[in-house]
Amino acid sequence: MEHRKAGAGIPGEFEVIRRIGHALHEPDPSVLLGVGDDAAAITPAPGMTILLTTDTFVEGVDFDLAFSSWRQIGWKCMAANYSDVAAMGGVPRHALTTLCLPAHRSMEDVEALYAGFHDLAGHTGHPVSIVGGDLSSTDGPTVISITVSGEAAEKHITRRSGARAGDILCVTGHLGASETGLRLLRLARERPTAGRPSSQGTAAQGTTERLTTERAASAQPADPFDGVLCRHRTPVPRVLEGVLLANSGWVRAMIDVSDGLSSDALHVARDSGVGLNLDGNALPIVEETRRAMEALGLDPVGTALESGEEFELLCAVAPEEVERLTAELAERTGTPLTPIGECVSADRGCTFTDRTGPRTLRPKGYDHFSG
Amino acid sequence: MEHRKAGAGIPGEFEVIRRIGHALHEPDPSVLLGVGDDAAAITPAPGMTILLTTDTFVEGVDFDLAFSSWRQIGWKCMAANYSDVAAMGGVPRHALTTLCLPAHRSMEDVEALYAGFHDLAGHTGHPVSIVGGDLSSTDGPTVISITVSGEAAEKHITRRSGARAGDILCVTGHLGASETGLRLLRLARERPTAGRPSSQGTAAQGTTERLTTERAASAQPADPFDGVLCRHRTPVPRVLEGVLLANSGWVRAMIDVSDGLSSDALHVARDSGVGLNLDGNALPIVEETRRAMEALGLDPVGTALESGEEFELLCAVAPEEVERLTAELAERTGTPLTPIGECVSADRGCTFTDRTGPRTLRPKGYDHFSG
Repeated sequence: MEHRKAGAGIPGEFEVIRRIGHALHEPDPSVLLGVGDDAAAITPAPGMTILLTTDTFVEGVDFDLAFSSWRQIGWKCMAANYSDVAAMGGVPRHALTTLCLPAHRSMEDVEALYAGFHDLAGHTGHPVSIVGGDLSSTDGPTVISITVSGEAAEKHITRRSGARAGDILCVTGHLGASETGLRLLRLARERPTAGRPSSQGTAAQGTTERLTTERAASAQPADPFDGVLCRHRTPVPRVLEGVLLANSGWVRAMIDVSDGLSSDALHVARDSGVGLNLDGNALPIVEETRRAMEALGLDPVGTALESGEEFELLCAVAPEEVERLTAELAERTGTPLTPIGECVSADRGCTFTDRTGPRTLRPKGYDHFSG
Repeated sequence: MEHRKAGAGIPGEFEVIRRIGHALHEPDPSVLLGVGDDAAAITPAPGMTILLTTDTFVEGVDFDLAFSSWRQIGWKCMAANYSDVAAMGGVPRHALTTLCLPAHRSMEDVEALYAGFHDLAGHTGHPVSIVGGDLSSTDGPTVISITVSGEAAEKHITRRSGARAGDILCVTGHLGASETGLRLLRLARERPTAGRPSSQGTAAQGTTERLTTERAASAQPADPFDGVLCRHRTPVPRVLEGVLLANSGWVRAMIDVSDGLSSDALHVARDSGVGLNLDGNALPIVEETRRAMEALGLDPVGTALESGEEFELLCAVAPEEVERLTAELAERTGTPLTPIGECVSADRGCTFTDRTGPRTLRPKGYDHFSG
């Protein structure tokens, strides 16, 4: 952990740590040493396995300041890391946050980003201690890189590779809104006078007091697609759901929907050595998302298959336990769990069935380059 | 851990992992799950504390491809993280490696970078398992971000904050060569026909077989300042030294020299609540570095105070044990430990004494912006 001056508007790393660090230190008995020494020192809970994941976001590639505030971007970057830990059945515990900042970024931008990290952590009910990081200057775009360490009991860790033929594929929550929200925002930029959807200036809703205040301050009427925009800007990782699914003993494989349902389902199939058939008619798409898709002229099922950064959990469940698991998850979290297909023997391949009949499933997840 | 295509020349993350990943998997019983799932899963050694650190390197800010090969850059990035763990008295165990790559970077560049990660890990005798990472495209400069987790027994963790008045400040190895090497490389770029020091094309020496082969292939005569260039390009973190110093029980505070001796000594003073006096005549500068400094017209002591990324260890030692510790470290590692000053009461402030008498010590460490 180096200590650099990041540009004219940003003080050195120590100064950033001093100003922001105070807010980051929840009393956490597992943190022997947090920010400020050469490395952080963490006491792992006895007998627990450590989960490590990292996700990086580049301005202009992974986020767009025309569509999201720094605070929303901070939320989403942290959410992606939380979701990876959730997909293993673990609980996030500690984070390292790294920023590469161009000289024109201000301390206010950095503070908003950290506020977003905290919004997300608080919202999930599983706050992490930010125990370190790095700060560098750059002549290029802003880069946000987060590493999260989490914990899980080894016996409850749920991999991508445990699915068996006959398992039912289920997904938490609903799909398609992240990509649909992005399309709405792009349309609003291209046709700012087109009336609805005119959502660019609308902050994502219902996340924190300040986000709500921001929206109120914008003095715009509530957008009919606020929920869709919210999913794009401030998606909620399924931490509690992941723990319950993993600990149930009935989930044999799990992954988060970050690349897109089709890509992520294919990851499970490949790693588990099974085939699968997804039921296009079963994909959970909420009414608001359907209306937005309709307004945009999007194919609902195709969009739900391709939409990345949904941060829902896709899992392979022992068939005789699907009903009990669905009921239990709904009761304890309020989150629906929807059967959307089944695992089959590998020789039957990976297919997708909709009204037109079965087709070969292709990875169409969210890639940043088409090449 | 997302899975993106990083650009025309680089395949998707999964493909990079497939091609490079094989080489990364030393059999490591602590790795329950490495690259390829949503998160890595690590079994910590019972009773050990986990150390976490992260360092990020931006092209054009933290490294220059005119001065170092990708392989040397990989070495140095990993070395910085190793050094942070070493400064706590810990042993590096696992790493996450993240790259943001512009479209013109090739798979060969990436492979060379990973070869550098491995060169460093192998050279120290403490290989890490690379258990995850991320890959993103960027329209800006290449960014390399590494997170390393290490282990130490809690009772042996050596902070910056434990120094007491009366302790002797000691430093491993020697100082000044990193900055001097950079100056040599800059001079060679500005005056390529100036004869000595004409070292730009010379690979750093004596690190790995391939680095040696590269140098031989360059068919240049050995540079009289090879050792200095080597320190700049492929510095060696003091992992074994850090463990021995921390475990001795005689070291009360420790930090690695990454920002520069004066900055890092001031970190120890501030965090320990002591003053200190550095003896400018005692700073260990090896003969080759002195000659290079002379050729460049550099002030040896000033350069040794300011030179960053040396990755030597600065420690505060109980005064009655300095002699034993120095002898023991030399015997077990061959690395000299040199007394270079003492800790004093805070009210005496932080001073630096050379031939001209005492002066106030200022942080002059390696900052990327002068502002």
